[in-house]
Parts: sequence; C-alpha cells; structure tokens
Amino acid sequence: MTAEKKTVAIVGGSGYAGGEFLRLALNHPHLEVTQVTSERSAGLPVGMVHPNLRGATNLKFRKAAQLDEADIVVLALPHNSAAKRLAEFEAKGKVIVDLSADFRLKDPEVYQRVYGEPHPTPEKLGEWVYGNPELHREDLKGATRIACAGCFATSVILALYPLLKLGALAPKDIIATGLVGSSAAGASSSESSHHPERAGSLRVYKPVGHRHTAEAQQELPGNFPLHLTAISTPRVRGILTTIQAWVPDGWSDKDVWSAYREVYGQEPFIRIVKVAKGIHRYPDPMLLDGTNFCDIGFEMDVDTGRVVLMSAIDNLVKGTAGHAIQSLNIAHEWDERAGLEFMGLHPA
Amino acid sequence: MTAEKKTVAIVGGSGYAGGEFLRLALNHPHLEVTQVTSERSAGLPVGMVHPNLRGATNLKFRKAAQLDEADIVVLALPHNSAAKRLAEFEAKGKVIVDLSADFRLKDPEVYQRVYGEPHPTPEKLGEWVYGNPELHREDLKGATRIACAGCFATSVILALYPLLKLGALAPKDIIATGLVGSSAAGASSSESSHHPERAGSLRVYKPVGHRHTAEAQQELPGNFPLHLTAISTPRVRGILTTIQAWVPDGWSDKDVWSAYREVYGQEPFIRIVKVAKGIHRYPDPMLLDGTNFCDIGFEMDVDTGRVVLMSAIDNLVKGTAGHAIQSLNIAHEWDERAGLEFMGLHPA
Amino acid sequence: MTAEKKTVAIVGGSGYAGGEFLRLALNHPHLEVTQVTSERSAGLPVGMVHPNLRGATNLKFRKAAQLDEADIVVLALPHNSAAKRLAEFEAKGKVIVDLSADFRLKDPEVYQRVYGEPHPTPEKLGEWVYGNPELHREDLKGATRIACAGCFATSVILALYPLLKLGALAPKDIIATGLVGSSAAGASSSESSHHPERAGSLRVYKPVGHRHTAEAQQELPGNFPLHLTAISTPRVRGILTTIQAWVPDGWSDKDVWSAYREVYGQEPFIRIVKVAKGIHRYPDPMLLDGTNFCDIGFEMDVDTGRVVLMSAIDNLVKGTAGHAIQSLNIAHEWDERAGLEFMGLHPA
Amino acid sequence: MTAEKKTVAIVGGSGYAGGEFLRLALNHPHLEVTQVTSERSAGLPVGMVHPNLRGATNLKFRKAAQLDEADIVVLALPHNSAAKRLAEFEAKGKVIVDLSADFRLKDPEVYQRVYGEPHPTPEKLGEWVYGNPELHREDLKGATRIACAGCFATSVILALYPLLKLGALAPKDIIATGLVGSSAAGASSSESSHHPERAGSLRVYKPVGHRHTAEAQQELPGNFPLHLTAISTPRVRGILTTIQAWVPDGWSDKDVWSAYREVYGQEPFIRIVKVAKGIHRYPDPMLLDGTNFCDIGFEMDVDTGRVVLMSAIDNLVKGTAGHAIQSLNIAHEWDERAGLEFMGLHPA
Repeated sequence: MTAEKKTVAIVGGSGYAGGEFLRLALNHPHLEVTQVTSERSAGLPVGMVHPNLRGATNLKFRKAAQLDEADIVVLALPHNSAAKRLAEFEAKGKVIVDLSADFRLKDPEVYQRVYGEPHPTPEKLGEWVYGNPELHREDLKGATRIACAGCFATSVILALYPLLKLGALAPKDIIATGLVGSSAAGASSSESSHHPERAGSLRVYKPVGHRHTAEAQQELPGNFPLHLTAISTPRVRGILTTIQAWVPDGWSDKDVWSAYREVYGQEPFIRIVKVAKGIHRYPDPMLLDGTNFCDIGFEMDVDTGRVVLMSAIDNLVKGTAGHAIQSLNIAHEWDERAGLEFMGLHPA
Repeated sequence: MTAEKKTVAIVGGSGYAGGEFLRLALNHPHLEVTQVTSERSAGLPVGMVHPNLRGATNLKFRKAAQLDEADIVVLALPHNSAAKRLAEFEAKGKVIVDLSADFRLKDPEVYQRVYGEPHPTPEKLGEWVYGNPELHREDLKGATRIACAGCFATSVILALYPLLKLGALAPKDIIATGLVGSSAAGASSSESSHHPERAGSLRVYKPVGHRHTAEAQQELPGNFPLHLTAISTPRVRGILTTIQAWVPDGWSDKDVWSAYREVYGQEPFIRIVKVAKGIHRYPDPMLLDGTNFCDIGFEMDVDTGRVVLMSAIDNLVKGTAGHAIQSLNIAHEWDERAGLEFMGLHPA
Repeated sequence: MTAEKKTVAIVGGSGYAGGEFLRLALNHPHLEVTQVTSERSAGLPVGMVHPNLRGATNLKFRKAAQLDEADIVVLALPHNSAAKRLAEFEAKGKVIVDLSADFRLKDPEVYQRVYGEPHPTPEKLGEWVYGNPELHREDLKGATRIACAGCFATSVILALYPLLKLGALAPKDIIATGLVGSSAAGASSSESSHHPERAGSLRVYKPVGHRHTAEAQQELPGNFPLHLTAISTPRVRGILTTIQAWVPDGWSDKDVWSAYREVYGQEPFIRIVKVAKGIHRYPDPMLLDGTNFCDIGFEMDVDTGRVVLMSAIDNLVKGTAGHAIQSLNIAHEWDERAGLEFMGLHPA
Repeated sequence: MTAEKKTVAIVGGSGYAGGEFLRLALNHPHLEVTQVTSERSAGLPVGMVHPNLRGATNLKFRKAAQLDEADIVVLALPHNSAAKRLAEFEAKGKVIVDLSADFRLKDPEVYQRVYGEPHPTPEKLGEWVYGNPELHREDLKGATRIACAGCFATSVILALYPLLKLGALAPKDIIATGLVGSSAAGASSSESSHHPERAGSLRVYKPVGHRHTAEAQQELPGNFPLHLTAISTPRVRGILTTIQAWVPDGWSDKDVWSAYREVYGQEPFIRIVKVAKGIHRYPDPMLLDGTNFCDIGFEMDVDTGRVVLMSAIDNLVKGTAGHAIQSLNIAHEWDERAGLEFMGLHPA
C-alpha cells in the first residue's frame, strides 16, 4: 500500500497551518510526508515544535533550500511569500497546494487593492483552483494548483452560497460578524497574543476592511454589499460567524431549509444544525476542534424577513489544512473523507 | 456620618444582581444595607452565598415576609415578580428600585407582546423612571421609582443614543450583535450553564427576538428597524456589543466623534475608546469587570458609509447594579460617582 | 468485514464516559455499536445528547429494559449500579466491561470502607481484571470481565509503577496532587458546575480521603503511605498529576530514566516527556484531549533526592473509555492501537 | 487634604507590578503619584499601557533619568536592577519600596546561591525590612526601606507561619504545590505566554528549585525541609497553594484552628476559609482578583496526621503591590486598610 502513496513536502511546517496539515497527512491512507521545512527549526524533530506529534513520526525539519522532489508540495508560508518563490516550488513537485492568500484572488487588481502591492506572478493566477470543494468540486478533479480558501472567507461563503445561488436573499446589505480563536493569528507570539492580555478579552480586531471580503465576493454569486467584522475571543481554535441577511418577500423558513438541502444534500462535511430543543441548537465551534465539518444553522425573524445565518468551523481544519486535504482527495479521486474521519469531542 | 445614611433593603439578594448591589452598597458612603432577603437562603450569612463578602458584613438573609421598613427598597427578583407584589414593597419604603424588566416598558401593550402576559399594574407604569442616567438624569433627580435598564439594552442604547439624537445615522436597518458572559443568565445552574458544555462554547442563544429590542426602541430617538443577536461566550461577566449602522452621505468619522463628544462630554462613566495604536484600541469588557464604565468606540468604512459602533460594559454593574447605584446617587443628589470608584483591573 | 465485527451494547450511554466509548467505538475496525441505553433520553437520536456524533450514526437511545444480546456489554452507570444489576447484564453478553468503580477493588472490606456500603456481589470480584493494560496485559488476554481503572488512579499508578516495581523510590510518604477538568464530575449540572462559579475557579475539592487512593494502593507494588489531593481547574478534560517522592541514596536522574525505559519501553500509549528546551518540557493535558496517551515526565532535586513525577491524561480516554478500548483490543488480540489513533491537537 | 499626601514616584511603571501599584495608589487617601517611569513608553499617557487607568489620571511615563524627588520611591524593576542602581534612587526619596527580589534575602551568600551572582550592595541588606505585615508589623513602623515579599513565598509563608510558630507541625518534609496565573511571568510576551500555547495549558514550570524557597525558609520559624513545585494554569491572576504537612501525634483539627486564630485573629487581610457546606469551602483565587486578602484553609486526614493547608492570593495585590501598600500604611501609621478596600467580585 505504501508504494502507492503520494509523497508530500510541506514548506513552512513550523506554523500552525503547516503543523495541522502534517497531523492530518500522517494518518492519511494515500499520503506520505517525506519532508517538512522550517528555516528557524531546521534540524529539530517536528515533535519539538508540534508536541502532539511526538512519537508519531521521525521527521526532522530541514531548510527550504534542501527541498527535494515530492509528488505534492504544500506551501504553508506567510502571505506574499509563495507567489514570489513559485518557480522554486514548481521545480519540485507536480501538484502544488498553497495555504496562503497568494493565489486565491483571480483579479490582480483586486489583489493589489487588498494586499497593497502588485501580484508577483499575475499570469499564473488563472492556473489555480480556489480550494473550496463545495463550490469547485468539478474543477478540483485532477487539479495541480490548489489555492486553499481563507478561514473566515470559508465560514462566510459556505453559509451564504446556497441562498445566493438560489435567489433566496433579498438585495440588501449582508453583514457578517466573525468570532475567531487566537490560533488564527498564527504561531508567533506578540504583544496582542500575550496570555494575560488575551485570555479574558473580547477584542474587535477588524471592524471594517477585512481582507477576506474580496475572497467572499469573488466566490459568491451575485453582486451585493458584503460587510465583515472580526472579533477575537478566548478560544484557541474555531470560527463562529453570524450573518444578517434578508429573504425576499414571501419567503419563509422552509425556503431557506430547501436551499441548503438542495445545494448541500450530499456534502460529506456540511451539517445543517437547527434543533428545536436542548442546548446545542445551533452551530458551535466548541464541537468542531480537529474536525473538517462546517456546521450551518439559521433562524428567521418572521416580522422583518431577517434571517440570521450561523456557521462554525475549525479555522485550522475546514478553514485551512482539512480543506486542503479534502481538495487533494478530490483532485486524486480518493475517498473525499480520507484522513478526515475525526468526529470531534464532546465535552470539549 | 452613619446617622445620615439611607437604609437599604435588598429583596432577592441571593442572585447575582442582588449580590452585586449589596457589594457596591456596602462600600457606599450614603447607603447602609440593613436587610437582605432570600427565600432559599434565609438564616444564612450573606457570605455563604456571596463568598466575596465574607468578613465584610454580618448580615444574614431573611425571608421577604420578614421585611421591615427601609428608606430604599431594591427589588432583585425574577421578571414578573416585582410588579405582582408591588403594593407589598411600597408599604416598606419610599424609594423603590427595581432591577427586573417589570417597569421598564412604558406601554402595557408592548409589555404584553414582549413578555407574553398582561402587565399586572399597568396604571403604575407612568410613575417609573427608566434608570439610565445618561438619558434621564433630570428625571432621576428626586425620583422614587427607578426601573433599572436591561444590560444588553444599555449596551445598545448608550452606543446609539448620541448618533440618533443628532441625526448622525442614515435611515437603514441597525444591527447589533451582543457577546455576553454567563453571569447574564443568573445564579441558578442549568444544563446550558454546566461548565463542560459552556466553557469552550460560542453559543448563539438569541439570534432573533431578543426582549431588550423593545426597551432599546422605546428609549432611542427616531423610528428605525433595530435587530439584535445575542451570543454567549466563555466570559463570566461582560457584554461586548458591535453595532452595524450607516452614516448619512457626506458624514465622516469626525462627525461621529463630535456627536459622542457633544452628548457624552461630561459623563462620568462613559469613555470613548478609539486608539490608533497598541492592543487596546477599542472597548473590551475584559477591562471593565467590577466597574461602572461603558466604553464606546467606533470605526468607519469610508467606502460604504458603514460605521461599526462598539460598546462594552460589565453586565452586573453598568448593566444592572452599578447603573442602579448611579441612578440613586442622582436621585439623592449625591456625588454621582459615590460607591462606583473601582477602576478595573489590568491584566484581568 | 462487518460480519466479523463484535457487537457492542452501551448501558448508560448519555453520560460522558458512555458517550466517549461510543465515539471511539464508532470508528473502531472491530466493533459495531448496536445498542445504547439511557433511561432519560430513550427514543432520542444519540446526536441529541452527544452533538459531536450528529451524522455519524443513526442510533437512538433505548431503555435498559429493552436491552438485547450483544457480544460486548459496556456498563457506563453511576457507581454502585452495575454491581447490583450484574446478573441482568451477564444474561445479555459474554464480555462485560464496567467503567464504574464497582469491580475495581479486590477486597470487599476495602470496598466497604471506601464506598460506605457492603459490596452487593463480593463473590464475583475475583472474576474481574483491573483494566490497566500496562500492568495487566497478560491477564487481559481473553478476559471477559474488565473493570476499567479510575481516571485519577490511572494517572497516579502509571507514574509510580515502574519506580516502585524496580525499587527506585525511598520508603517515604508519596504525595500526589491532581489537577482535574470539570468533565470528571460527569454530565449532570450542579451548583458547583455552574459556569460562573467554575470558569475562573481553582477549587480544592478533595484535599484528603480521595477514593482512588485505595485503587492505587491495591495496584502499586510495595507498602507505602500514599496521599492524594485533588483540585479542579478551568479545563474541561484532562488530569495533570504531580507526585512528590524520594529516590534512595545514591540514585540519580538516570536511574529514574532507566526504570521508565525498562518497564514502558514498548508501551504504545506511554510517552516519557522530559525535554531540556522549549515550552513543552513536561506532560501537559492540553495536548492530550481525545487521545489515549499517558505522558509521563519527572525532574529531580539533586540536593534532597526528591523527585517530582508528572503524568497527564485525558480523563475520559486514557482515564476511562480509551483505556477500556485498549483493554478490549488486548482481550481480543486485536491491534492494541485499533480505534485509538487520534494523536491530539496542537494548538488546542 | 491633598497637601498632606505623600508624593510617590514609581520606577518601572509599565510592568504589571508597577501598574498595579499605580492603580492602588491612585485611590489611596494619603498617596499622590507624581511620577511614573518607563524607558520603553516614555512620553505616553499611562492609560496607553494600563488601559484600566484611562481617564483616571493624566500622568505620562518619563524616563528614569528624569526622575525628580518624591517622598516615596517605588521600584518595580526586573530582579537585579534595583540593587545595582540603589544610590540613584536613594538620592531621590527618603522612603524606598522595592517590589523585586533584590533586598529580600538577608544573607548575601544565600542570595548568590539563589540568583547566581554576588549581591551588588551586600552592606545594605541589613537596612531593609521584609515587607510582610503579618510577620513584621512592628519592624515596618517607621521603616524607610521595604523589600516587598515574593508572591509565591507569601502564599507559602502565610499558610505555614502560625503552625510553625506554635509548634503545630511535625518535623517532616513540607511540600507546597503552587498554581499560578500567567501574570506572574510579567508583561512581556514570549513563546510560553503565546495565547494558543497557554490558554488550555497546565504546565509544570518549576518542579524543583523555585527561588522563593529561600525566602520562605528565611522567614519561617524552625529548620525543616521545604519543597516547592510551581504549575502555571489558565488563570491570569492568582495563586492557589496547597501544602502537605503533618501535625504532631495527638494534635487535631482544633489545634490547627487555634493556631490560626491565635496568630491571625486580628489580621485585617487574612481570612480563614473552611466551610462545611456549599461550593466555596476552601480558599479560591477566583474570589480574590484585585483584593489584598490572603484566604487560608485546611483539612486534616485523621488517619495519618497529614494536614493539607491551602492559601489563595492575588499575586499582584497581596503578592506584590497591595502588600507594599499595606506595608506603607503601617510604616506611616495610616489605617492599614487604606486604599485596599476592594472586596472582590462574585461571580468573577
């Protein structure tokens, strides 16, 4: 069986996204991680940086300069690094998965507006598939360039897509408020991540101007004003997004149900969570740590036509590494659930 | 000095609101708590239920049936209890402060719609002043019936009031998302407050239909659609509310600043928090535990005219007991800050 | 493959221990859960109580009275329930696993002293194997009665066993201090589990007289005074135990290392964690949520011969349900790791 | 009244200890803070660094080189800074309070062994009073050099002092296990304080060799082996210390009670917490944030004569700045409670 596995090299494997990809890949039936790079930790066993992997692998970090060929190269670099060094990585592997924002936006002008500088390889943007299986499953089959979707964008896109696709929303401003865990800011410590400053905090860190707005607008059908506000919470993992939108006159709760069922009925990683009783009535990231699920729920205010959509994900799994694994599974026509079987803990 | 103190009886003093009022009153220069009732804990020292008060007082709980006269009677009962038993309490004290929702709404029809049953004493509603000093300071002077404002309502009202009063908002839907700590649900344990189910949770508990909507609409100037969504967080105390609104064409950041300054310039417990640098740029309930402050901030999206307002309070202080103390201070023309000097902890 | 699976009935499946066994069994290659009982939740889908299992199974709770036969009956009942009803369960399955304390102690007099009443079936105690694979692997092979070890006892036993077995500890008092998450108190809400009372608490809940003392003394070699103090922490899962002991004169750090290596060298679920650098130097339950690992570390005070042992587990996995699965794997001579592959999250 | 206030200069006021002293001093009836230094934040308003103080003061940080005279100079510098620069500060104020460890140990050889380098001004050590009011109240009267006690040392000393003073402990090893919040490591971010690495962690950070051992041994009566193990918890503030000790043959629970009553009967900031019922039976740091209390409790294991002592403090108040204020109150013969009236929050 091992002979048939695809070899994987993870570039930038000491961060949270790379570490999570590594964790998932180590238990994947068709992947074999053969290289993990880290400039800062080169020479160290990966378990020194990702202590959950102690005993699970003998891999050591190497420098990117020592990268050998692999079937799949996974880039877990800071934004605006992968694009600049793309040729270097294209020389090493046929399939490239980028976990950064570098290849998500199709339009180089939008990229420049959002990220503040010209895209280094605009001519390459067309080669990449936006790594969201629910929207691009067909495109992902056989894909060799996968730009993994952003975490907050994923929580927004997956909640809105069926309703916008099926015309279930009125043409009004859509407002998303995202509650995010501290891992979303990455593995490097900073003043804002200092535990005494963060443990009890509810901190609005991006009231306006969130970069994922552009991603969501690119991917979602229709043309509508979309507003995002992001707030950091005491959780480590997870995103809970509530979205305020309006249904057209005459639409009801059932129409929203129908839209989700029609579009997501067969999706292996989407669960519609809307329960009349009990304490777990709506999506809650508490239940999703380590899983690839996106739980989606909603509630309607019948007096006003307002519908509150809710989505929850683990930002590092369905928001990053799990999404990437799912995309690779589709690209290679493996079981889409392979390596993503963990169902989450309760209590957690 | 003691001779001049007003005596206080707290009815329903074993819950969080009553306990917090007691804590504040014990250090208040003009108040002397002489009675605290609790049906369940009658006979016990108050420190058995409120362990922070061990050694601070020798008071014991008594039953409400044993209530003696007092200058001020503070009602900390479940909703819909105070109104039914009002005559009983009016016989005991000249000044009555109600911490519940029973006397907040002026219109008995609105009350019935929101709370699901007719108001027991609709003829009395006109006697009560809505206990929000920032809006009703003049009415509070000499007041003998004070209906303490709701916690989530307070966070919404204080953020919006100056802008609505001065016409700084466009006539569009206003959307408030409130993040609330677990103490807001009270002192009784339940399945939903069970620590393993709650500690890591981000739980949308009221996506639509929050009862405080009516309170906020009553108090705020103008006629506009207001929508509230409430989410419980792992914090114990505190509310952070973000509000999405829109400024009229041509209005800028400076106009919002001006509105807050004009209306709140002299307010002792409102701070405008909007800092360009550092990690404490906006209001954060982390900094407000135990304080009577309402911190307010905002940020504008210049492309769309959207303004994101943010307000933070301690739900048990500025949201309940501190608000009541401040109202009492005004009613008696004492120093408005009396008993409310605690400035909060950092780190916390 | 399904044909070869052993059928499993879980009795008392709405609590945390039963729910965790169910989670692990659903992904186990040789187990098929066919029945789950709950008196309170009979008729409901298991996902209503264990929301992490939504979509993972169509099982519904039934009442225990409706129990059918199964290859393996897993008892997840409150203490002192399983023993009283043993005949009822023996009629249903050949292999019985009890997750409670009922069959752990061999000596009925010790049982009576610790649990305050006579054991209902003392004549049966000899049939049960104490479900700790590291100590009783040989006994577990083919076992049909498995009394799953207690969670705090497991953290104490696994840290001390090699040193006591090999005479690496001086005959002095041994003192264990256990930090425990809130899930250890079970799924029922109570005043002490109320989130506002528990979220920030460090609560000594059992300074002396912990019932697991007897279990640990039964299982550990030698005769020595063992003292346990248990403290609840804001975590949901996990136990961190520090143990204060003394090495004999002339013994060093290396001797402790040797003892662990000799006894645990081949153990699949024990990791010795003692790292000179970095932030993850010793065992930490943060890394173990959902895993079956017991991480063990130590540090020596060379001036005094004191050695501080540390062990960390997930109380619901290595402390309960995972331990049971591992025991079943051994009993049936399956791969000891089957169903227990999850390696834990970082960050978490 | 202001004319009679003592002026205070805080040197190193951007850290947590200095910030906490500032908070307490701003509300103190006899203190007026006129200067706060910070090399890094010179020029900034103190509210930029300590956001709880926004609006409470107009003070700005200055550099230490700009220090003017003051009645009281409070040194909140890293260890081993104050001693080296002592002459500089002695020139500025008559009364000096040092919050660091520099002047706590009387014996320069012990200092060198513990802190790894010779003391810079050993000849000065005799001038300093160890700033623990419960042990040194008489010495503190009129004192002009106060070396504020260490936080973990304080929790150990206050729990043990009465028992050792009155011979209530048997001559056996005493073992203290301290659970500490993240603020104890200071205001600077680091890899170990990174929120995702710390939020869920129970991390043994000092199993042996804690520096406060020497402090406790210096201050406590008698000669006995004392062992400390320190564990960091997810709390921000607070220390809970459990201490394992043994009473002499024939001593009982009542003797321990008597010892505490005899020694601490009149102490304003010590509360003996040992309650038979309810959920707040023993000391818990949850209740002490912001307060100057040290809560002490105990429980005895009658079979073995083991007594488990428990103490809880806020490490930044009774463990640092509050202790210093209390010492200053005594030194100046002010009301010992002045500025320390805050009684703590519940829930918290």
